[in-house]
Amino acid sequence: MDKAIILTGGLLETIHAKTAHGLLRSSERFDLVAIVDHISAGKDAGEVLDGKKRGIPIYKTVKELVEKEKETPIRYAIIGVAAKGGMVPDGIRSELEDVLNAGISIINGLHQGIGDIPELANLAAARGLELIDFRRPKKFEDLRFWTGRIKDVKCPKIPVLGTDCALGKRTTARLLTQAMRQAGFKAEMIYTGQTGWLQGGQYGFFFDATPNDFISGELEGAILDCWEHKKPDIMFIEGQSGLRNPSGPCGSEFILSGDASAIILQHNPKREKFKDLKQYPDFVPAPEDEIKLIKMYGADTIALCINTLDMDFEVAGKYRDQYEKALGIPAIIPMAEGVERLVPLLADFIKNYQPQ
Amino acid sequence: MDKAIILTGGLLETIHAKTAHGLLRSSERFDLVAIVDHISAGKDAGEVLDGKKRGIPIYKTVKELVEKEKETPIRYAIIGVAAKGGMVPDGIRSELEDVLNAGISIINGLHQGIGDIPELANLAAARGLELIDFRRPKKFEDLRFWTGRIKDVKCPKIPVLGTDCALGKRTTARLLTQAMRQAGFKAEMIYTGQTGWLQGGQYGFFFDATPNDFISGELEGAILDCWEHKKPDIMFIEGQSGLRNPSGPCGSEFILSGDASAIILQHNPKREKFKDLKQYPDFVPAPEDEIKLIKMYGADTIALCINTLDMDFEVAGKYRDQYEKALGIPAIIPMAEGVERLVPLLADFIKNYQPQ
Repeated sequence: MDKAIILTGGLLETIHAKTAHGLLRSSERFDLVAIVDHISAGKDAGEVLDGKKRGIPIYKTVKELVEKEKETPIRYAIIGVAAKGGMVPDGIRSELEDVLNAGISIINGLHQGIGDIPELANLAAARGLELIDFRRPKKFEDLRFWTGRIKDVKCPKIPVLGTDCALGKRTTARLLTQAMRQAGFKAEMIYTGQTGWLQGGQYGFFFDATPNDFISGELEGAILDCWEHKKPDIMFIEGQSGLRNPSGPCGSEFILSGDASAIILQHNPKREKFKDLKQYPDFVPAPEDEIKLIKMYGADTIALCINTLDMDFEVAGKYRDQYEKALGIPAIIPMAEGVERLVPLLADFIKNYQPQ
Repeated sequence: MDKAIILTGGLLETIHAKTAHGLLRSSERFDLVAIVDHISAGKDAGEVLDGKKRGIPIYKTVKELVEKEKETPIRYAIIGVAAKGGMVPDGIRSELEDVLNAGISIINGLHQGIGDIPELANLAAARGLELIDFRRPKKFEDLRFWTGRIKDVKCPKIPVLGTDCALGKRTTARLLTQAMRQAGFKAEMIYTGQTGWLQGGQYGFFFDATPNDFISGELEGAILDCWEHKKPDIMFIEGQSGLRNPSGPCGSEFILSGDASAIILQHNPKREKFKDLKQYPDFVPAPEDEIKLIKMYGADTIALCINTLDMDFEVAGKYRDQYEKALGIPAIIPMAEGVERLVPLLADFIKNYQPQ
């Protein structure tokens, strides 16, 4: 694996660094060396994430990192934020020349292409380095339309959807994939965002950079590729946004075009308003209401996963018990308890699954 | 207005030529001279469309057209189909050199860019002609994110949604705009597809060519632009696809991101399976069920419009009466009866509208 550092530009302790957080939790594509973040410098990255040390230092600047890690052959610097607006944040932009001057290539999954910034393009070319804008929209010739061949897939396909964005849908999908593998099943995950690819995902696409006409076909194509190559017992699909988030509602594609066998729903009981939309009148729907909406698209919701941002585990546990009773489906807190409690349910689901 | 011809490659009498059909119904951007379609050649284009002559001849080939219309200064040839797959159909592709050799520029709204076809690009360059691929995705810098400023718009915004695609949503939105104008209201239409732009639409965007992350922002932006420049009494928004069409479900964006004040729903009672998906198990939902789904997104459906493909008007009239009784909202057949019956309802809606 190539050695890589992550740039978070002072945002590491915020929800905007969810790309970096995902990579700290799981990285099968890169060997993480360090993080550059001027606010959290001096700490261990794992401590910042969840209180558990991971031996990944945080440096104030790229210059400091290069000085301290001069024996380490670092190949890539990954831009580790998903900033609103899709632009490279200033705190990261100001470090990028130093990255290239240190002989390190850059990987960027933001909408703004760094290959389009002339100073960086020239510097990278002069030094023979790469500027990888991996979320660039594909060319028309490389995009797939939906065909209905999704029905050829003979294993359960379970999207993890959410009542809002940034609730841990990808992490839950990854934990479920790992837990099912540990229980002896062939499980695969379909990524749909930049972090899933950075973490090493083999099957998936970039939902939000895909022209709308091709969303359903690219989703179907990723699922078909996975089925044809791996013949898994079960697939978990990373959902995007929230079904009723007005800034970009999303969910029906996963249920209908992805031919979902069932849904796992992610929710934060404390989040009354949608992320970054405190002033907007719409409220985050209650899980029971979201489950009804999902049912109207033809899918049953088989478990609720509770996100615990702004909440301690004791409070989350009370919500868990309330929801489980009210909804009649298992409710779990993935980040506190893991997802193993869902394994027998999913094992039964596989056993009783009949493709239609 | 520039004089233009339309190329339909033998598809004029099929649903695939809905772009040409739309232009024949209404063209405020181009002055239509003729159509080239080897199957329907010799007829009048209006006769083929709806039995009403429009004085627009159909020629077999571009060569024949050029011979017969040599006195007419034709500036553009418009590719008038919305073929599945987004590729230029062979029957049109084979005419394009003749178009350029006749000194006519080409306008194309298919996903496949004709500017990418070297023979055409070279020929156009040599002759100083234009190849306009107007549905090319915008550059990132030109795309807008959703902001919530949609709440600044103080008039009713009414999307025309459908239980499937190709049911006449755009035509209904256009007819409603015209009818409200005739009744003395300032009405505007927001286009979301290629035909709407070709017809002369001023405010809108190309839904299916827009990267998913920007759909909600481009929709909001088009509505805001229209509001700021025109301050209309009411806006009608062209919907896309169908809410539960598995090949590309669509609708929640219009309701939530477009902050819909109410919905007008388009439906064909005879269409049991989704367009081009006869073999796929999913059925087109019944209007009463679709209205429930729309309500879950927060909008009331205030009228049903019946599409009459594969149906005579007598049969359609029976459906109209049944639906009107069962649903408790007006049901109309726009292509047979016009949309004037909805004008008093919409006038009341404007009168009682309170922005939230």
